[in-house]
Amino acid sequence: MRFGFSLPIQHPVGDHLPQRVAEAVEMVRLARQAGFDHVSASQHYLAAPFQYMQPLPLLARVAAEAGDMTLGTGIMLLALHQPVDVAESIATMDVICGGRFVFGVGLGYRDVEFDAFGVPKGQRLSRFLEALEVVKRLWTEDRVTFHGTHFQLDDVSLTMRPVQKPRPPIVVAASNDRMVQRVARIADAWTIAGHATLATLERQVGLYRAALEAEGKPFPPPRFSLGKELYIARDMDAALREALPYLATKYEAYAQWGQDHVLPAGETFHLPIEQLRQDRFIVGDPQYCIEQIAEHERRLGIQQMGFRLHWPGMPHQRVMQAIELLGAHVLPHFRR
Amino acid sequence: MRFGFSLPIQHPVGDHLPQRVAEAVEMVRLARQAGFDHVSASQHYLAAPFQYMQPLPLLARVAAEAGDMTLGTGIMLLALHQPVDVAESIATMDVICGGRFVFGVGLGYRDVEFDAFGVPKGQRLSRFLEALEVVKRLWTEDRVTFHGTHFQLDDVSLTMRPVQKPRPPIVVAASNDRMVQRVARIADAWTIAGHATLATLERQVGLYRAALEAEGKPFPPPRFSLGKELYIARDMDAALREALPYLATKYEAYAQWGQDHVLPAGETFHLPIEQLRQDRFIVGDPQYCIEQIAEHERRLGIQQMGFRLHWPGMPHQRVMQAIELLGAHVLPHFRR
Repeated sequence: MRFGFSLPIQHPVGDHLPQRVAEAVEMVRLARQAGFDHVSASQHYLAAPFQYMQPLPLLARVAAEAGDMTLGTGIMLLALHQPVDVAESIATMDVICGGRFVFGVGLGYRDVEFDAFGVPKGQRLSRFLEALEVVKRLWTEDRVTFHGTHFQLDDVSLTMRPVQKPRPPIVVAASNDRMVQRVARIADAWTIAGHATLATLERQVGLYRAALEAEGKPFPPPRFSLGKELYIARDMDAALREALPYLATKYEAYAQWGQDHVLPAGETFHLPIEQLRQDRFIVGDPQYCIEQIAEHERRLGIQQMGFRLHWPGMPHQRVMQAIELLGAHVLPHFRR
Repeated sequence: MRFGFSLPIQHPVGDHLPQRVAEAVEMVRLARQAGFDHVSASQHYLAAPFQYMQPLPLLARVAAEAGDMTLGTGIMLLALHQPVDVAESIATMDVICGGRFVFGVGLGYRDVEFDAFGVPKGQRLSRFLEALEVVKRLWTEDRVTFHGTHFQLDDVSLTMRPVQKPRPPIVVAASNDRMVQRVARIADAWTIAGHATLATLERQVGLYRAALEAEGKPFPPPRFSLGKELYIARDMDAALREALPYLATKYEAYAQWGQDHVLPAGETFHLPIEQLRQDRFIVGDPQYCIEQIAEHERRLGIQQMGFRLHWPGMPHQRVMQAIELLGAHVLPHFRR
């Protein structure tokens, strides 16, 4: 198992963000010592009630401290962007981290983002698929001509290439069944968004596995990973007391954003936090965390877990303590 | 006078770019010790025959070493981008460098860039002006509604704001007379692109000054600056021998790109390098550089100079030597 964590990128309005960036840099340094393998950051725009930094500059800044860890976008909202811009920006990121960049993309679901970028929401899937195809071709072909519904290129040559050959790994975060099946065809691995219950995820892994088989691809692919909210403290009571208020605030906002609408039927975020956390978040002492991670590994076949260790407003020291506890008690358990 | 330099961002195809980034980091460290005030990087796409990195990730990476220096885009090709993306990306950059970001923009002129982004070149000016207006409003107003020709926003609230209040300085690189006059109205300062002869620039400064007066704005504004190709060595012969071959290669490509077509009538890059350098580039020993800088300061009224010290293929050690010589012999001369 490889372990990653996502940078604290989302903070309450009014927070002094330069301090938050300084803290993120400290976390990366500590995570590197603690044995983490991967650092990620995702993309949202217009993220009221939070301030949400853009992931590429933040990842480029922490690359200075990341050592041998890989870096990557959890998701980038590919349907909002021009493929030539994406191809050269991610190639530059791959250069900056010495060929250790993982390109994670997602479809997005928030109306406010599509509206502000002038992208009709009904076109998001076809834009996403077209952009992904164009980016791959720009990275791997000397001259690209492409006439699609959304993008037109005539004999374009991308000189600004990634370090990794033929290209950086492409992973897709997906929550609904059809997208999960599609990932088998279009990307190197599925990143399980991890907001749904374990029973739902287990069922979806079955779909993914069958779709991979139909493509003649092995299961599990190397970067098949699960994103998970995790909080660890010395004992269970402290873990729950310290984490749940921040998780509750975050999921109230995400319920308002409508993120649960992209989950399979029956999944909702409109639940009391005590009930929401069951089966969805890992919050507990080291032994509990080990058991939960092992169970997810066993039931889902994942090769990597990416923890979200921070929610808007959570004090820096708690995240540092969580990284330390994971490095001391949990990660070593999964090293073979 | 403040002094800046632009990062080596453009390299021959085949160069190993991670090494070039490591060198850029060293340059920033040395420039900081040498007394430089500002580090910049510009934007181009599809920059054959060179590899051209994207400026925001590169600037974010070197921010780790920049100390109190300001950072900024020399230009960003604003007409190619969505204003919400630009507003949040530059705000994130401003956070990463602790409120020291200067937002430099330019119109662009290369067909290959506009074509690849699906932007009709005839719309580039109106897109540029509209995007600039929207970015300013997103940074300074709580809720923005905008119905333009290119961009539509309804009651949009940008929570991801810059650190600098009300917003980062906006500077515009411009080469033609009408754009120079327009800069007086739409931005905080003109950045003289510096490719034209001194006589042409002097005439254009007259236009700029008159346009500022018409707006009731003082001349010169604080960040009124000149970008200039500069190479310094211990003696004149070495300077010419070491710099001219690289300058020649770069300007052959820029002539092919058609950059001289956006200069005022009579200006061309289609000249032998010996002739091209006269009056356009500063290449010489420390005393010559001091005299040239002083003359530009006197005749143009500039408050800042930004040096391009590197051209594709030039060895790292030559740039390091130039930064060192500037810090030891030239910059102190202009400190009051």
